[in-house]
Amino acid sequence: MAKINANPVRGTRDILPEEMVLRNILESKILNIYTRHGFERIETPALESLDLLMNSDGGDNLKMIFTILKRGDKLNISEDSKVKDLCDMGLRYDLTLPLSRFYGNNKELLQQPFKSIQIDNVYRAERPQKGRFRSFKQCDIDIIGESSITAEIELINTTAKALLEIGFSDFTIRVNDRRILSSLIVKSGFDQIHVPSISVVLDKLDKIGQDGVKKELVEKSYEEEKILDLIKNIANLNEDTLESIISNEIYVKELKKVISDARVLARGEYSIMFDPTLVRGMGYYTGQIFEISYGPYGFSIGGGGRYDNMIGNVSNESVPAVGFSIGFERIITILMEENNHQSLRNKRVALFYKQEDEITSVINYADELRIKGYYVSLILSKKKLSKQIGQLKNFDYFFIYGKDDELKSID
Amino acid sequence: MAKINANPVRGTRDILPEEMVLRNILESKILNIYTRHGFERIETPALESLDLLMNSDGGDNLKMIFTILKRGDKLNISEDSKVKDLCDMGLRYDLTLPLSRFYGNNKELLQQPFKSIQIDNVYRAERPQKGRFRSFKQCDIDIIGESSITAEIELINTTAKALLEIGFSDFTIRVNDRRILSSLIVKSGFDQIHVPSISVVLDKLDKIGQDGVKKELVEKSYEEEKILDLIKNIANLNEDTLESIISNEIYVKELKKVISDARVLARGEYSIMFDPTLVRGMGYYTGQIFEISYGPYGFSIGGGGRYDNMIGNVSNESVPAVGFSIGFERIITILMEENNHQSLRNKRVALFYKQEDEITSVINYADELRIKGYYVSLILSKKKLSKQIGQLKNFDYFFIYGKDDELKSID
Repeated sequence: MAKINANPVRGTRDILPEEMVLRNILESKILNIYTRHGFERIETPALESLDLLMNSDGGDNLKMIFTILKRGDKLNISEDSKVKDLCDMGLRYDLTLPLSRFYGNNKELLQQPFKSIQIDNVYRAERPQKGRFRSFKQCDIDIIGESSITAEIELINTTAKALLEIGFSDFTIRVNDRRILSSLIVKSGFDQIHVPSISVVLDKLDKIGQDGVKKELVEKSYEEEKILDLIKNIANLNEDTLESIISNEIYVKELKKVISDARVLARGEYSIMFDPTLVRGMGYYTGQIFEISYGPYGFSIGGGGRYDNMIGNVSNESVPAVGFSIGFERIITILMEENNHQSLRNKRVALFYKQEDEITSVINYADELRIKGYYVSLILSKKKLSKQIGQLKNFDYFFIYGKDDELKSID
Repeated sequence: MAKINANPVRGTRDILPEEMVLRNILESKILNIYTRHGFERIETPALESLDLLMNSDGGDNLKMIFTILKRGDKLNISEDSKVKDLCDMGLRYDLTLPLSRFYGNNKELLQQPFKSIQIDNVYRAERPQKGRFRSFKQCDIDIIGESSITAEIELINTTAKALLEIGFSDFTIRVNDRRILSSLIVKSGFDQIHVPSISVVLDKLDKIGQDGVKKELVEKSYEEEKILDLIKNIANLNEDTLESIISNEIYVKELKKVISDARVLARGEYSIMFDPTLVRGMGYYTGQIFEISYGPYGFSIGGGGRYDNMIGNVSNESVPAVGFSIGFERIITILMEENNHQSLRNKRVALFYKQEDEITSVINYADELRIKGYYVSLILSKKKLSKQIGQLKNFDYFFIYGKDDELKSID
C-alpha cells in the first residue's frame, strides 16, 4: 500500500484529546439540564433520502448537501446523468428537517407534545474558511405539538439554564416575531410579496446601519419614500410603542407575554430584549424568533423560532413546532480561547513502571489511585526518564513506581 | 412541497427516547472507565478520502463503502465514469483506519504511547437484515506506540472493567495469537501461502464442527491427510500443551503471560481462556487477538487484537498498535431485551397545568421538583385529562398543578 496523505479531508478536522474533554463535559451538562426540563433525546441517521433533503425549506443549505452515490444495479451512469440520477441519499445539513421526518414516522410512540433533544453532527459542503467546518455539531431542543406560547417560554428558559450551567451569564436573548416586521413593511406601503426580499436586507441593519440598508433597498429599485418610512418605523419600534404601532394583534400580546415571563424566570442572571430588527435566515419560521448575543462576540451563540408549517410536509396533518438551538461549536471556540477548561476534568497521573516490574502489581496500584478519583495512565519508563517526564501531555502528576512515595506535580 | 415518505432510509433507523436513555447511560459509564484508565477520547470526521478507504486492509468492508459525489467543477460525468472518477470521499466503515490516519496527522501533539478512545458511528452498505444496520456505533480503545504486551494486558483489563461497570459479568475473554494457528498449519504440512485461506475455514470450527471444517478444506482441494493432522493438532492444543507443541517461540510465552496476568486482574469476576480456534476476520491483525463471549448469546460482545503494520501505511514509520472494541450495538440489543433499563434513569414527572395558570409559577414549582432530582415536563391539560394521563409515555409520576398536593404514581 502506498503512503497516504494523513490530513483529514478538506474542510474537516481531527479533534484532539484536550478539546474532547471540554466537548464531553459541555455535552453532558447541557444534556443534563435539557433532560431535567422534561426533554427527551432522540437520534436519527446522518443519511436521509435526497427527496426529503432537496424538497425542504433549507435555503442556501440545499446547495451544500453531500450526496451519496447509488450502488450496484441502481447506478446507471450516462453522459446526461444528473445528481438526482446518480444519488438517492444525502447527508443531513441540519437537525430540524430530520426531526420533522422522525416525528412523522414515530408520532404514535411519542409523548404529546413531544419535547426532543438532538445533539449530533451535520454536514455542509461550505467553502472552507476559518472557524467554519464541513462537519460540525448542532445542539437543539424542540417542542412539537404545542401551539401555545408556553412552548416559547419553556424553550427560552431551558436554553438559558443550560448556558448558565456551562458557565455563561450576562448573555442577551433577543426576541422578535416574523409577523411584526412583515406588518411593518406592509404598513410602510410595500406589497406583501416583497416582504422576504426586504427582510433579508433589514437583517443586516446591525452590520451596515440605516444608510447601508437604505442604499441596498434603493439598489433593489424600491421607492425611497417608502424605504425612509420603513426605517423610521423600525427605529421607533420598542417594547413600549409596539402595541400602539401594531394594535390589536394577538401575536403582539403574545410576544410581550413571552418577554415578560422569560424576564421573570431570568432572575436578572441574563437579559431578555425585544429586537425588531431580528430576522434570522431560515425561510421556515412562521412566528416568534430568538437569538442569543454574548459579550464582545459578533456572532450569536444560539437561536431558534416557531416553524408551524414544516412538519405538515412530512406528516399527514399540520403540527405546530418551536425550536431553540445552542451554537455548540461557537461556545467551544469561546471556551477554548479562555483556556481554563482543563481544570474541569479529574486530575491525570502518569504512572511510570519498568519492564521488570510485575505488571499486575502496577495495575493494582493504579487502581488504588483511580478509586481516589485520579485518572491514571501506565507508561513504560525509558532510559531518559526525565525527558519522558518533560514531554508529558495533559497530565497533572507523575509517579515512579517502586521509587516515589507520593505524587509529584507537573508544573 | 409534496408529501414525503417519513421512513428513515433503507437499512437505517430512528432511535426513540427510551433506547436513547440506555445508550447515553452506557456510553457515559464506558467512557468514564476508559478515561479513569488513562485513555483519551478523540474524534475524527465521518468523511475520509476515498484513497485512504479503498487502499486499506478492510476486507469485505471495502465493498460496503458509501461514497460521496464530487461537487462543482470537480464532477465530470461521462459514460465511462467509474466510482473513483465521480467520488473522492467516502464514509468511514470502521474507527481503526481513521485512527491510523489521525495518529499520522497528529503524532507530535499526542502523548506517547497514545491511548485513544473512540465512540462514534460508522457506515456500511450492508444488505439490510434483522439486527444489522447501515449506520451503527462502535466503541474502541487502542494503544499506539507500545510494542510490549502490557498494552494487551491493559486493554483486556480496561475493557473487562467497562463491561463490569455496565452490569455484565461471567463473560469469557478468549485469547489467541495469529502466529500460533499459522505455525500449526505449516506444521501440518501446508505451505505458508495457504495460511489465510485455511484460517478462514478454521474460524468456523465452533459453528460447523470438525466434520464441516474437513469437508470445506477437502472441497478446496487440500490433501485429506494434512487436514486430519491439522484438526488433530488443534484439538490437542490447550494452555498446558501449547509450549510443548510450539516450543521456543517468544509469542507463546507472551501469550501465556497475558493470559495469566489478565486472569489475576479478573479476580474471578470473568474468565480468561486460551482459544486456539479463534481467528477473527480482519486481515490486519499481526499478533494476539481477543474476543468476548457472553452467556447464551451466539455472538461476541467485543473483540480486538494487535495490528503492528497498519499505522506504517499512513505514518512515516512502523508503529506498533493494539485495539479492543466493545460491541456497543450488541450490548444495547441484550439490555433492551432484558427491559430493566428505565430504572437506571431519574424519575420523570408529568406536571399538568391549565391555560389560565400563571406559567412562571408553574415553572418555579417544576424547578423545586427538579432540585429534588426529578425530571419534570410541563403538559397543558386538555378537557379529557384522565385520557391524557392514560396516554403518558416514559413517565413515573404525574401532578396536577393547583389540585394535587403530592406526586401520583403511574402504574
